[in-house]
Amino acid sequence: MIKEMTQDEITLHIIKLLKENKKTDFITILEELQPYDTAKIYEDLPEKHKLRFLLFLNNEVLADLMQELEKEEQLEVLNKLGIEKSSKVLDLMDNDDLALLLDELSPEKKESLLSGMKVEESKAVTDIMNYPPETAGRLMTNRFVWIRSYYTVREAVEKLKTFAEFAESINYLYVVDEQRKLVGVVSYRDLLLADIDEKINNIMYERVISVSVTTDQELVARMTERYDFLAIPVVDESNMLVGIVTVDDIIDVVIKEANEDIEKLSASGKSIDFDTKTFVAAARRLPWLILLLFIGLISGSIISSFENTLEQVVAIAFFMPMIAGMTGNTGTQSLAVVVRGLITHDIEKGVILRLITRELGVGVTIGITCAILISIIAYVWQGSFILGAVVGVSLFFTLVIGTLAGTIIPLILFRLNIDPAVASGPLITTINDIFSLLTYFGIATMFLNYLM
Amino acid sequence: MIKEMTQDEITLHIIKLLKENKKTDFITILEELQPYDTAKIYEDLPEKHKLRFLLFLNNEVLADLMQELEKEEQLEVLNKLGIEKSSKVLDLMDNDDLALLLDELSPEKKESLLSGMKVEESKAVTDIMNYPPETAGRLMTNRFVWIRSYYTVREAVEKLKTFAEFAESINYLYVVDEQRKLVGVVSYRDLLLADIDEKINNIMYERVISVSVTTDQELVARMTERYDFLAIPVVDESNMLVGIVTVDDIIDVVIKEANEDIEKLSASGKSIDFDTKTFVAAARRLPWLILLLFIGLISGSIISSFENTLEQVVAIAFFMPMIAGMTGNTGTQSLAVVVRGLITHDIEKGVILRLITRELGVGVTIGITCAILISIIAYVWQGSFILGAVVGVSLFFTLVIGTLAGTIIPLILFRLNIDPAVASGPLITTINDIFSLLTYFGIATMFLNYLM
Repeated sequence: MIKEMTQDEITLHIIKLLKENKKTDFITILEELQPYDTAKIYEDLPEKHKLRFLLFLNNEVLADLMQELEKEEQLEVLNKLGIEKSSKVLDLMDNDDLALLLDELSPEKKESLLSGMKVEESKAVTDIMNYPPETAGRLMTNRFVWIRSYYTVREAVEKLKTFAEFAESINYLYVVDEQRKLVGVVSYRDLLLADIDEKINNIMYERVISVSVTTDQELVARMTERYDFLAIPVVDESNMLVGIVTVDDIIDVVIKEANEDIEKLSASGKSIDFDTKTFVAAARRLPWLILLLFIGLISGSIISSFENTLEQVVAIAFFMPMIAGMTGNTGTQSLAVVVRGLITHDIEKGVILRLITRELGVGVTIGITCAILISIIAYVWQGSFILGAVVGVSLFFTLVIGTLAGTIIPLILFRLNIDPAVASGPLITTINDIFSLLTYFGIATMFLNYLM
Repeated sequence: MIKEMTQDEITLHIIKLLKENKKTDFITILEELQPYDTAKIYEDLPEKHKLRFLLFLNNEVLADLMQELEKEEQLEVLNKLGIEKSSKVLDLMDNDDLALLLDELSPEKKESLLSGMKVEESKAVTDIMNYPPETAGRLMTNRFVWIRSYYTVREAVEKLKTFAEFAESINYLYVVDEQRKLVGVVSYRDLLLADIDEKINNIMYERVISVSVTTDQELVARMTERYDFLAIPVVDESNMLVGIVTVDDIIDVVIKEANEDIEKLSASGKSIDFDTKTFVAAARRLPWLILLLFIGLISGSIISSFENTLEQVVAIAFFMPMIAGMTGNTGTQSLAVVVRGLITHDIEKGVILRLITRELGVGVTIGITCAILISIIAYVWQGSFILGAVVGVSLFFTLVIGTLAGTIIPLILFRLNIDPAVASGPLITTINDIFSLLTYFGIATMFLNYLM
């Protein structure tokens, strides 16, 4: 019935049902909705209808709903539901999502919610929260179904049926031995295609690719992307299967990591989005800006040390912003290539050397092109052949240096195990400012007698 | 047997088998490998062994291998295999991957390969290549299995078995009516859990979420991410099911779109990676740099128009790089927040107004903080209270303007349907250079009498 309705029409219809207290019709509609849509509808509801909406839902649907909401809304729902019902809903949430939620709560609130939960569920989520952030251990869910290799397909399917609600979104069954060590994997497709009395042993895939609980989430994402997996199993140090990471979490990781790179490249500060409060956003950005302010003053003191040159040939100042800007730009370009390249490449010596040589070549090529162009422009504009030559030669050297700095600095940081994106665009730009001013004023001072 | 071997050990073992011409042992090993690993081993092989390696593989494995290789290597494999065998392998490739490969070939080569292929396969891939780039039509595969709603689970599984090889990596069966219009979906999990004689009609999910062939790939990715789908069906204008987009392609889209944003934000030019040749990379970057060079000259001409001011108080030049740099930096920070935010947010008027107000607040906050700081520093350094005030007030205004420019310019571009990331970091930086120099020199000139 709701098949042809738009989201807004559905929302209006649901408000009507809530007003008229028609629970059965309400549930029929909710069954046809995706969790994301249910969440959007809940968010759009007038405040006065929200409580009844929640009370009409069973715990499973509430758990699905929770997983789609933003942090603040999750807390709001928990408050509306009360501690006792909340704990029951939390029991049903994926424990990776639950860990993220609990991380945000005060220790007392967290304690009271955990103590209302089933022992095994609260243990599972507490375990997850003990792994370092951004590792497979933090991303994994314990809602997977394991089977033994001596099962038949029929027995495997029986077990899957028993745990159906439990293992909702996963498309593999993992095979473990008596110590719960991971020994194989079968997909739902394999089960469907196999004879019902076939032994799992004969259809399972043995060279299972797994990650460790401490594997960095970026590496987990890279492996999932390479192998086109829908889920990847997570094992502890003794190869015991402890969880799985599903592809939907991987997509979130890929988006988050890309955003982090962009944040760092633009020095825009951690985690600022459309909803961040003004002073929080300002406070997150200020540290970078103040650092860059001091570095900018170094440029100033370089100029002041060439005060004499500048006083005698003021025209030198005209080309200062262009030279500093161009050097910064070429550095940022190299930086972006390196930072994104490091994500998809395994770094070997040969690759690095080839990259540096390539960027040197690029620097020389764009250096020569831009230098010739600016020499002609400077000569025509200021009528001085020497000034044209000084500006051109300076630009050539600063572009080569700038390109190399943008390449080598992130590579050194990477080698030192520092995230290369920390060498943010503005930082490289500012460092290149200093290089370029030293070069430009140095060359101009050498030719000062000819310039005057 | 190879379960415990490292990649290098496997490669060595495979070389040994190739040397000894042991095809059966070779095939046993290959069966245990993931396509990505097979591709890595092929790449690492000495040239002399590559042909035999390829000839030992059957067409299905060759097709899988092709899908993991880079463009150049794909072409190399096609050359080694010859036109006839190549066409057979292409028949078995996913047609979205195949379309990407054929796009790169000369028209003659493409024609000769297509004419060797099965008619239905060559038609399918030609159809795909007719859709605009970066749409669902380009990403979709035709390797899905459709069923009818009156089938039983048993009949559905039978059909799946018949097309097993064909529909390898998908986890849903799509239900169509007599006109091939999409009317429902069942997952492999639903099939496993249902009674074998149940009608598909009773277990299928009817509110199927689909995309159109012309839907932008970014939107397809956003929907997959929101709904945690493993695949999303693609329909044409009459709601006929024509293909599906799988989650592994979505991950590639997410990575590609993030890289594109970074490329544009850093004006680093299109598609430059570690393997791009020097002159190609230089040529891709030069247009931006030359544009920025001319914009930089505008800054120069602004300074030259204030030559008189500068000649009388050279100290003004000392703070120039700092002011221009800071304005550029704050603009880049805002830009990054906006560009990434636009990816995950639906843009409504309220959101935009709130964002602009927030950024104005941020600009004022960091403006006041930095202005006070620099006034004190300038006063201490140059011993002039007026100079300190001029620099501080200028910095305040330029930071506010810079922040707003970094926010509003990408929003305007977005409204005009231009990708906001085009307002790249360097472009914003350079525009902010101009704003900041005008403000700074303007204010300095007003107070010139007090500064001297």
